[in-house]
Amino acid sequence: MCEDKNSMRLEMENLLKRRFFYDQSFSIYGGVNGLYDYGPVGCAIKINIINLWRRHFILEEQMLEIDCSMLTPEIVLKASGHVDRFTDLMIKDTETGECFRADHLIEGYFEKLLETKDIDDEKKTEIKQLLPQIGNMNVEDIQQLIEKYNIKSPNTNNKLSEPIAFNLMFSTSIGPISQTKDYLRPETAQGMFVNFKRLLNFNQGQLPFAAAQIGNSFRNEISPRSGLLRVREFTMAEIEHFIDPIDKTHSKFDTVADLEIQLYSASNQINGETAQLIRLYDAVHSKLINNETLGYFIGRIYLYLIRIGIDKNRIRFRQHMDNEMAHYACDCWDAECKISSGWIECVGCADRSCYDLTQHTKFSGQRLVAERQLSVPKRVQITERKINSTIIGQIFRKDTSIVVKYLENLSENQAHSLHEKLEQENEKCTINEKEFIITRSMFKLETKEKIVQVEEFTPSVIEPTFGIGRLLYVTLEHNFKIRPEDNQRKYFTLPPLIAPYKCAVLPLSVNAEFKPFVKQISDLLTQANISHKIDTSSSNIGKRYARCDELGIPFAIAIDFDTLQQPYSIALRELESLKQVRVKIDEIVSVLQDLATEKVTWNEIFALYPIFTEQQTKRLEN
Amino acid sequence: MCEDKNSMRLEMENLLKRRFFYDQSFSIYGGVNGLYDYGPVGCAIKINIINLWRRHFILEEQMLEIDCSMLTPEIVLKASGHVDRFTDLMIKDTETGECFRADHLIEGYFEKLLETKDIDDEKKTEIKQLLPQIGNMNVEDIQQLIEKYNIKSPNTNNKLSEPIAFNLMFSTSIGPISQTKDYLRPETAQGMFVNFKRLLNFNQGQLPFAAAQIGNSFRNEISPRSGLLRVREFTMAEIEHFIDPIDKTHSKFDTVADLEIQLYSASNQINGETAQLIRLYDAVHSKLINNETLGYFIGRIYLYLIRIGIDKNRIRFRQHMDNEMAHYACDCWDAECKISSGWIECVGCADRSCYDLTQHTKFSGQRLVAERQLSVPKRVQITERKINSTIIGQIFRKDTSIVVKYLENLSENQAHSLHEKLEQENEKCTINEKEFIITRSMFKLETKEKIVQVEEFTPSVIEPTFGIGRLLYVTLEHNFKIRPEDNQRKYFTLPPLIAPYKCAVLPLSVNAEFKPFVKQISDLLTQANISHKIDTSSSNIGKRYARCDELGIPFAIAIDFDTLQQPYSIALRELESLKQVRVKIDEIVSVLQDLATEKVTWNEIFALYPIFTEQQTKRLEN
Repeated sequence: MCEDKNSMRLEMENLLKRRFFYDQSFSIYGGVNGLYDYGPVGCAIKINIINLWRRHFILEEQMLEIDCSMLTPEIVLKASGHVDRFTDLMIKDTETGECFRADHLIEGYFEKLLETKDIDDEKKTEIKQLLPQIGNMNVEDIQQLIEKYNIKSPNTNNKLSEPIAFNLMFSTSIGPISQTKDYLRPETAQGMFVNFKRLLNFNQGQLPFAAAQIGNSFRNEISPRSGLLRVREFTMAEIEHFIDPIDKTHSKFDTVADLEIQLYSASNQINGETAQLIRLYDAVHSKLINNETLGYFIGRIYLYLIRIGIDKNRIRFRQHMDNEMAHYACDCWDAECKISSGWIECVGCADRSCYDLTQHTKFSGQRLVAERQLSVPKRVQITERKINSTIIGQIFRKDTSIVVKYLENLSENQAHSLHEKLEQENEKCTINEKEFIITRSMFKLETKEKIVQVEEFTPSVIEPTFGIGRLLYVTLEHNFKIRPEDNQRKYFTLPPLIAPYKCAVLPLSVNAEFKPFVKQISDLLTQANISHKIDTSSSNIGKRYARCDELGIPFAIAIDFDTLQQPYSIALRELESLKQVRVKIDEIVSVLQDLATEKVTWNEIFALYPIFTEQQTKRLEN
Repeated sequence: MCEDKNSMRLEMENLLKRRFFYDQSFSIYGGVNGLYDYGPVGCAIKINIINLWRRHFILEEQMLEIDCSMLTPEIVLKASGHVDRFTDLMIKDTETGECFRADHLIEGYFEKLLETKDIDDEKKTEIKQLLPQIGNMNVEDIQQLIEKYNIKSPNTNNKLSEPIAFNLMFSTSIGPISQTKDYLRPETAQGMFVNFKRLLNFNQGQLPFAAAQIGNSFRNEISPRSGLLRVREFTMAEIEHFIDPIDKTHSKFDTVADLEIQLYSASNQINGETAQLIRLYDAVHSKLINNETLGYFIGRIYLYLIRIGIDKNRIRFRQHMDNEMAHYACDCWDAECKISSGWIECVGCADRSCYDLTQHTKFSGQRLVAERQLSVPKRVQITERKINSTIIGQIFRKDTSIVVKYLENLSENQAHSLHEKLEQENEKCTINEKEFIITRSMFKLETKEKIVQVEEFTPSVIEPTFGIGRLLYVTLEHNFKIRPEDNQRKYFTLPPLIAPYKCAVLPLSVNAEFKPFVKQISDLLTQANISHKIDTSSSNIGKRYARCDELGIPFAIAIDFDTLQQPYSIALRELESLKQVRVKIDEIVSVLQDLATEKVTWNEIFALYPIFTEQQTKRLEN
């Protein structure tokens, strides 16, 4: 089975390379690890995954999509914690200087060790217990493991350096003088936090609302090796759903409450249990999932994954364990998909509480808060400064404004102590190297009672975050097929909305009579915004069908000798079933439009139109 | 008039900021010059401009869209010339260190000088002649001007430094050891050149074909100041149309040949003439435009600009003068649009000949060429190496393979001299620090005649390149209007395909009876993938209409008391005319779909549906 999965994966990866779905960047110059270029097919699939994301999330929830700079000044990433903590532990081969990600190196070492027969059962149990913890270990833990197990550099058996924390951000410098330290963003989220005030204002001050962003981010991985799954530049789609922390209900939760989803809770993981199929309603109401809004997004993510063609039986949501969750987060679930190499995280969904806005408030000095109406207006004591500028003016004349400004700008504490001091005696202040005597008549504090209708609060954030490249890879793997009757015939059963081209246009041969029909059909499809691939090369039509199948094109139009007869018609073939129907040319646009937008299924079309098996018009075609 | 244009621009820019179309990035941290974030409206318009680009160019021509890495190793940009030549001249204020772009500084100085009365007519003429040349001046020219006119730092009047060439690329380093020098791409074009072989292969070896790419690029502008028009990070869309240099005809040229376009030729510019309205057919056949393919793209670009809402009377194509065109280019035309501040370049369209592929062939050692069928097969002499591995094996045994490999890897020149040497005597070779005696029986060259059907050539490239941010700005400026009857009512007449939301949904008031209809209509629109903005806030409906107008939403649905009566219907209002029709709820999706995709015009709808002036149902609403 494992052999089989691997050989399927190899077959697929060969095809992906050969038909340029994607491939390593700059390979004519030797290539760069962790960078990939999407070719025409991969690029079209990626765009479709993004467009469907927009439709499924942004349009459905009226989210506010924004598009922010990738170049980011250091202070923003200081506030977010990335400058200090966005690191992986790195180890070097002390002779060759080769760099390794410490956790991956040790995991690889242990996995090999488990396969050998040199170790006893006790050791095995110990290693098996260690393995899931390695990803979260600190410098000291890692160093201890290296010493205890005498771990060496995997390719050379040389000694390893001590681990050091390596920051994964790419640095650069904005402006001509290189004075500033700047980075390429490691995620799109920060752009939404720093624009919070503008977005809240756009939404007329109302919560909840969600911001969304789709764009590239950058992580300088130490040693990327897993194809599209771990790359240095990648497209993400992120949502920041801002919400009042005292009310995390969601008005549309009932639309997903009945979904049954594989949930792999933290306690399942600790107890060595497998994931459980649980109704979302039950998961939220038993508090397994922290709140309705988080539950709502888990449901919506699940539906989205299925819509882009991921197998629903290979999806689970794994809850973060306490030791992997950030201290500020309430709860976090990763959507994981099972592929040939195991389970991989494709979407994260976290309740980050009010951490992000609090941090940016602290670092920027701008209050990133919202207001809530109080059900009962509240009396509050407020203290106001009374600065008597008339008296100040009489005494200090042209210096009036600097004295007034000085008094206005005192901190709360300074103002209070000045107020108290002036009860006893005058105060001598130095402003701009000049002395001024401040008296009671110039300055005092007055406390008043005020009735307030609203109170400020820092919103919480629920953050679903999607790796588009990973989703693309998973849907390709889940939809890759080889025809049982011919192992040379490979194809992808992608949903029509995701397929790179909706339709192939194939004349039976290079016969000149077919040409005007190819043009006519292509023009009709273009006008209707239906992407299609024309293949008029001289290969026989079987070969050309096979080529289109390899690209995952769900429908193919064949132009044959029957096409030349009135009423003009074509044969429409479906990729997986290989079944064909006969459709008149003037109906083809509406049929394909409905199929491509998934308004109708192939089975419905197949029931409606005459089945096509062979041409009526007999003609000798060499 | 000029005043008026400027006040219109200020009105618009206030609105763009207030409604967060776009704004400076990171402004809670003081902001970064040359970086902008697109808010919900700007982002939606940008996406629509991109989607229409895809449809107008990629779908129409079956272009191969790809999506490549932004991180780029140095060698790629050495090959392209960017490392050596992608510079602007920079001047510093010698006291404050403030940096200026030299040409902008001098242009600003001269423009101010022309406005003063201190200079005589002779001087004026001299300066007017100098002005258009400044952008293309080198270090010495600029330095001379500074000295001759005694130009000082504009804000401080301090002395200026000598100009230096400042490279505009952002540098970074890929990988953990910072050994490599890498950059953020300054354009998307290079990704298409380095993937040329893969793309040619995908296209089954056939030319012509076009690659296309949409994505962000980065330029570290010295002192960016013109809003969206000169930024450090921007979205471009580029096409590389690869073509056989001996045949630059285009099969679809006749579809644009009759367009009459303002062409501002190099000779117009030299002779101080204005642009001329010329039929594309005539421009190509008189050789004003170098070739049909270049002419075809000029026509297609023109049509695209109009489709996204740019005023056709404010578009011209300006030909590059000899001194601004790269030495390798055959011809180059910029699509320029007139805005309040003058003409700005929005699209470039150049015939770059075979420069790019030749450079990458030279730097990578990979032959980036295509093949053309010869009309008459050709006899050519080819030289083959005959390496006798049997004899080599008898003599060198276990070293056989390294000797064979050595002989295979000799360069052409080395092989020729070895061949000639062996005529006279044996040759002593050192391979891997070991000596081998090579004899005639082991190695020789044989020359044969071969008949070839194809010959290799380096394709030419026609490159249309679009600045998406500039297009967005221009279409906003060309569509910004203020209602003559009320100068507080501002709106944008964007084409429906470009408008950020297709439709607003506005209940007459907060009356609870309207709520289910708001939900029903929103659900219908969502299902049909029609973007819309619901405004259920408590402001009166006039105010809410005005808000939607400011966002450029072309159609608005009002839910009123008539809506509550069977047959349920709504009032549909068009933004510019303010006219309304009454449409039944079950027809609203198809009406809006047709309007949003520009299948029908508002005038057609207005003729078909009953005109709505006031509600039939009279009800007292607070």
